[in-house]
Amino acid sequence: MAQPVLGTPWYKPLGIRKQECSSAQTLASLDAYWRCANYISAGQIYLFSNPLMKGGLSPRDIKHRLMGHWGTIPGLNFLYAHINRFIRDHGQNTVVLMGPGHGGPAGNAEAFIDGSLSEVYPDIPQNEQGLERLCRAYSFPLGFPSNHGPHTPGSIHEGGELGYVLSHAFGAVLDNPSLLAIPIIGDGECETGPLAASWQTNKFINPQTDGLVLPIVHLNGYKISNPSILARVSLQERDDYFKGMGYRPYTFVAGFDEEDALSIHKRFVALFEEIFAELCSIKEHAKQGFHERPSYPVLIFKTPKGWTCPTYIDGQKFEDSWRSHQVPFAAADETLTHFDDFCAWMASYRPQEIFEKDGTLSKQVTRILPQGDLRIGSNPCADAGRVRCALTLPSLDLYKLAPDTSQRGALCASPTYVLGLYTAKLLQNNPQMFRVFGPDEIASNRFQSIYRATHKQWYVDIDKDLENDGELSQTGSVIEQLSEHQCEGLLEGYVLTGRHGIWVSYEAFAQITASMISQHIKWLEALRREVSWRKPISSLNILLTSHVWRQEHNGFTHQDPGIVDTLLNKSCNNEHVIHIYYPCDANLLLAVAQQAYTATDCVNVIFAGKQQIPVWLTLDEARLELARGVLEWTWASHTDAHGNFDLVLATCGDVPTIETLAAADILRRQGVHFKFVNVLNLCALQRHEENDTALTDEEFTELFSADKPVLFAFHAYVGTIYRLIWGRPHSSNFYVHGYQDLGSTTTFFDMLHMNQMDRFALAAHALQILNAQRALVHSCAKPLWKTARQEILAYREQLYRFTLEHGYDDPAATSYPSVAKD
Amino acid sequence: MAQPVLGTPWYKPLGIRKQECSSAQTLASLDAYWRCANYISAGQIYLFSNPLMKGGLSPRDIKHRLMGHWGTIPGLNFLYAHINRFIRDHGQNTVVLMGPGHGGPAGNAEAFIDGSLSEVYPDIPQNEQGLERLCRAYSFPLGFPSNHGPHTPGSIHEGGELGYVLSHAFGAVLDNPSLLAIPIIGDGECETGPLAASWQTNKFINPQTDGLVLPIVHLNGYKISNPSILARVSLQERDDYFKGMGYRPYTFVAGFDEEDALSIHKRFVALFEEIFAELCSIKEHAKQGFHERPSYPVLIFKTPKGWTCPTYIDGQKFEDSWRSHQVPFAAADETLTHFDDFCAWMASYRPQEIFEKDGTLSKQVTRILPQGDLRIGSNPCADAGRVRCALTLPSLDLYKLAPDTSQRGALCASPTYVLGLYTAKLLQNNPQMFRVFGPDEIASNRFQSIYRATHKQWYVDIDKDLENDGELSQTGSVIEQLSEHQCEGLLEGYVLTGRHGIWVSYEAFAQITASMISQHIKWLEALRREVSWRKPISSLNILLTSHVWRQEHNGFTHQDPGIVDTLLNKSCNNEHVIHIYYPCDANLLLAVAQQAYTATDCVNVIFAGKQQIPVWLTLDEARLELARGVLEWTWASHTDAHGNFDLVLATCGDVPTIETLAAADILRRQGVHFKFVNVLNLCALQRHEENDTALTDEEFTELFSADKPVLFAFHAYVGTIYRLIWGRPHSSNFYVHGYQDLGSTTTFFDMLHMNQMDRFALAAHALQILNAQRALVHSCAKPLWKTARQEILAYREQLYRFTLEHGYDDPAATSYPSVAKD
Repeated sequence: MAQPVLGTPWYKPLGIRKQECSSAQTLASLDAYWRCANYISAGQIYLFSNPLMKGGLSPRDIKHRLMGHWGTIPGLNFLYAHINRFIRDHGQNTVVLMGPGHGGPAGNAEAFIDGSLSEVYPDIPQNEQGLERLCRAYSFPLGFPSNHGPHTPGSIHEGGELGYVLSHAFGAVLDNPSLLAIPIIGDGECETGPLAASWQTNKFINPQTDGLVLPIVHLNGYKISNPSILARVSLQERDDYFKGMGYRPYTFVAGFDEEDALSIHKRFVALFEEIFAELCSIKEHAKQGFHERPSYPVLIFKTPKGWTCPTYIDGQKFEDSWRSHQVPFAAADETLTHFDDFCAWMASYRPQEIFEKDGTLSKQVTRILPQGDLRIGSNPCADAGRVRCALTLPSLDLYKLAPDTSQRGALCASPTYVLGLYTAKLLQNNPQMFRVFGPDEIASNRFQSIYRATHKQWYVDIDKDLENDGELSQTGSVIEQLSEHQCEGLLEGYVLTGRHGIWVSYEAFAQITASMISQHIKWLEALRREVSWRKPISSLNILLTSHVWRQEHNGFTHQDPGIVDTLLNKSCNNEHVIHIYYPCDANLLLAVAQQAYTATDCVNVIFAGKQQIPVWLTLDEARLELARGVLEWTWASHTDAHGNFDLVLATCGDVPTIETLAAADILRRQGVHFKFVNVLNLCALQRHEENDTALTDEEFTELFSADKPVLFAFHAYVGTIYRLIWGRPHSSNFYVHGYQDLGSTTTFFDMLHMNQMDRFALAAHALQILNAQRALVHSCAKPLWKTARQEILAYREQLYRFTLEHGYDDPAATSYPSVAKD
Repeated sequence: MAQPVLGTPWYKPLGIRKQECSSAQTLASLDAYWRCANYISAGQIYLFSNPLMKGGLSPRDIKHRLMGHWGTIPGLNFLYAHINRFIRDHGQNTVVLMGPGHGGPAGNAEAFIDGSLSEVYPDIPQNEQGLERLCRAYSFPLGFPSNHGPHTPGSIHEGGELGYVLSHAFGAVLDNPSLLAIPIIGDGECETGPLAASWQTNKFINPQTDGLVLPIVHLNGYKISNPSILARVSLQERDDYFKGMGYRPYTFVAGFDEEDALSIHKRFVALFEEIFAELCSIKEHAKQGFHERPSYPVLIFKTPKGWTCPTYIDGQKFEDSWRSHQVPFAAADETLTHFDDFCAWMASYRPQEIFEKDGTLSKQVTRILPQGDLRIGSNPCADAGRVRCALTLPSLDLYKLAPDTSQRGALCASPTYVLGLYTAKLLQNNPQMFRVFGPDEIASNRFQSIYRATHKQWYVDIDKDLENDGELSQTGSVIEQLSEHQCEGLLEGYVLTGRHGIWVSYEAFAQITASMISQHIKWLEALRREVSWRKPISSLNILLTSHVWRQEHNGFTHQDPGIVDTLLNKSCNNEHVIHIYYPCDANLLLAVAQQAYTATDCVNVIFAGKQQIPVWLTLDEARLELARGVLEWTWASHTDAHGNFDLVLATCGDVPTIETLAAADILRRQGVHFKFVNVLNLCALQRHEENDTALTDEEFTELFSADKPVLFAFHAYVGTIYRLIWGRPHSSNFYVHGYQDLGSTTTFFDMLHMNQMDRFALAAHALQILNAQRALVHSCAKPLWKTARQEILAYREQLYRFTLEHGYDDPAATSYPSVAKD
């Protein structure tokens, strides 16, 4: 990977003496920055006009609707001030991640002050006019949302749904040795599961080859309307907690007494210098070849919630209370009732000292800022398209399989295993810029051939004799933490900072991250709709395997193909943010994966099997199918001499395809003529108004016919197909088979049998449909088909009895079909 | 609540001297039990016949398919042995929760040995025949699944998807002061988010009024194919971690050297006695009125993975390796290759000592067992229907609202606030048997009137001056931990042990628990299908509010109504395990909630608003609508003198209903005749083969007509309605409006506007549809409607411009309609 320009690493104070870091001028500047950021933040929440309070505020300057969350803001602004000062003095490549998403105004204020906001939004210049526009645009239609998200330069994390900021930070520093990531974590967020798990990710970080994470816990004591747990346990317990997870806690307390601001700033500068020195020494030790896992500093930043807002309003506590979580004077009319108090509060930030007369920022405020790309709002890693390098792709031709097209079905391969081989080569070609994550399932998902090219990164003890630890190493491109949340979060952090990757999971347990994936999609949707200045980032790729149909051994808890519905709900606005693939052989998976690996600003979810299954298509055919998303498999179709057919057999997913091809074999022997269609890209079935790359109605009719029944065997729940085909021409011709949420620990055939997905159920259903149609048209059914259907069902029951009796399947029930060239 | 019979609390050793607990006889029995359970566990995995190895095994006795997970089993069996001994000696009311779900054979072995299995499955008697049947039934079609789940007596937790065992345990002990819950937690599970968060739930437990949880971390070192993090950090770090979370860690190590079994047992008995003494003293202190939060013991149980299986197979490490995770001799043919080694392994458990000749268990094995309901497999709390008491319901009449039916829309109320009042009374009427959980959102969701009856339970520091802590108390029926996982998990544990409750969440963030709710539904599905002996448990109730349409202030991250699709995928088999309600006023919510609170063996998910909105229906009307799930609102319909109408206006959800009623007002003025239908229970739209309580096709046609267009305004994504109506008669007449995944921080009208859900878009669309139809039939559109539509759209744009300009809405855009009696 091209190192970002800022790759200067981890100096000890850059020729700066400690006292210079906290010179009187610097302390005054820190305080001016803090007041300025607090003022601009409050301004965004309250002010519609006159943002400099010129001639004093008038009630007309107050917004009609007050939206925002004050509670977390002053603490964030304090930290931003000091991080700016720190970057200025040390030139350290630093990204900041704001966990308390509702602190949006603080993030906007930061980017306004450091100038990065005006660079991407030229209509918001750094003067009075710009300030007024910023204040007005905040939480305003077509303006800045209330969360710190993709709209604001410098942000790579939106914290609306809490829990993911620390995993994003760890993802950001992987393979980025010069980067310091500072996630600011609310004490509320600390109570969530994903956040609680992510502390342990430090066990994977290699301080030599990765960057470092400095978590700051913003312990302001209260959530929306409750105290936070971490704020109420003893200092000893809290310290033990962090020590126990491999951190060295530093607690900084301020704002609870009369200590003057400059002295608080002075103390904080000293502490931050101490912590940075420790980070430098961790880096230095790692560079010198020490391989002990360090204890990483964590900063507990304890302040009152709502710090610096009115202490009491109408006799109720606000500063240092959950009551300051949102807007201290809650509504415009309430603000007006307390107009004088409100004005006094605003004036307490001394706008006259922080702005020049023309509304530009006083030198006092900006003096502590770093310059250029070192600015928080301009760090290249936070607009990762700027630093992203394209992958060097291995040729698929070296990995493709060559099925005998005169007898398809003979050659078998595990799709995920084959993709693992390809991905191994990809890893080799693209060191330090492609990562694989898995929740302890890489091998179980048969993706383990990637270990030919890399190791599992692991920075805890490794057994010397390697009897169990052969694939572990302190460096490697794979991380296996038993947490789907961490896999998703680390990969998000990695691609959001300009790199590439994939995570691999059991299909059922991807749903654990359903809401997390949704949030990443929302980020991408916002990019496409509203944020034109960000450069494209790599796709987020998820390979879901160990899927529902082959979890017969693990049982019902492991059988759930439903994540697809969560995905389909997103991106129905022609934005192509989601791609959903069901490759049913190894070549299709290769073609899909190559496309997915190179895509940008989207999420690719690929459902593929790990079992040895037939390779149906050549790579060229696979590419052809990928191009349109759907393909008639003419070699599997069986039409009469004139190209006529009785029904369409359609499939989506590997097991449904195998069973339908086997059913086709039965039907062919019954003289049924059919067309065979395979769906690879599920989104190709979406309606055109949702997805303009989907099949047109004409193409849809061409593929599925205007008048023939369509027997559609689908990998997941039938409802998914119903929602997709509703409104399509002739969709009432469809008969959909899918997973019916029936399962247990049982045999493969029993799984198929209970969900009506076995070849016999499919063939018998086809005959039943055809006969019913025939009865309508010709007033009689075809006796041959009636008898055949009964025989098929009888045979099916015989095979089922075998299964029940023996506990395994008669091979005739599940053998792979093969299709000879006509 | 009726206390379970076992409510005898927390004695110090019951007249038993320590040495008696570990008498030679007891130690020998512990070891015999352990060998017996290991033998029966391995038997389930490997043996098809001859489970006593009579005359030695023959290759024919090996199962053809070997399924299961050995790695976790011997440790579980060891713990079961000792917990049995402990219960026998102390008579302590104890439930055990098996986190490593794959340890199913251990759970079955336990219930077989303690006799509870044979009591519920009389065809599996405690003899050779029963043993053979058990072995055969394991992981066999129609038999016992491989997870420890609802099929096995004594289980209240299925661990297939990891992360929830500790929250289930905490949920189980709430308001159950005599209960000791022992969750056994795999070191893999410790890496998941939900588990990592659940340790902190001890901050809510009141040791006087609740039971206690003794977590045992089963530290066997390896996951599927990786070491676990907790096993590789230092003892000091691990201890600090647990201390930091308020626990006192005890580490027990065994199995890594040549120490003989009896000495291991002796050490463990001593440790367990010490830990129990500590638990008793915690209980005793709490009883005496000490209110300091205790440090709860946690047991770290460190053993080799696969303990007692062959150390090496073909030169590869198995015992103490991830390789023993599944089946040590992986396939039947492999087992046969190593047949002698396999037989020697089985023989190492000395079956001749643990079974009598007739296959009954030797006294040596059973001597350590408790009797009757004290048995792990028979604890009443683990078959909670046995102890569950019905709720005493307050009358809804005291809480219902009485809208003026001659002018509907005038009376407004917040539905969740009203339900809060009702629930407060319910809490008062049913102390210690109904609980409310929330992720720090009870007040935000306007459910705070429950605090009239109870407090938020909080067992950390409470501020004495109560400026911030007025609603907190060491006892209370509400828990607010900022983790949706914990809310769901605690409620599951609470209802699974016989009590009742609800959790309340922002709609969008319920999706965080999508997979968790799915797993609970799977438990219920298995109950309905396969487990007839369990008595019904209370419904799991989820109130989702702060919903998509009114999250305009919190922004796009907070806007996601998609959880409903995950729910609809479940229970499509006529099992009525899921109920999905969209009550659109306070009376409907009251009626729904009362039905939900009293339902059993199901999950009720209720989507309801928190804003002040009109009360459309009287309580009687609400009950009528609830009975069928759908109702024509005749007072809102506007038909001609003959009852004819031009179109059907259908709604589901509060905001769509308000907007459609407002659209109806516009349409009425244009001379359009319509019928108005409201859908309360979304499942009423399911196809009959999925849900036999849904509308029949005849009822569906009666409601929505055979030939009129249906304008359907739906709360969530349109795809959900498409999947439901596909295949219904005349479903192509439907035109569905719903959330289109468009949003931001903006005004309410802008939210409606961008998603085409505002009254003007609805009315204009209706006119467009009617005119298109008319053009088809009469070859001309109705000019009046064409003009009216243009005027409506022009007015809409005018209102929209107001919003963009002012940042708030013209009241005309969003005012509540009112409907006068004709």
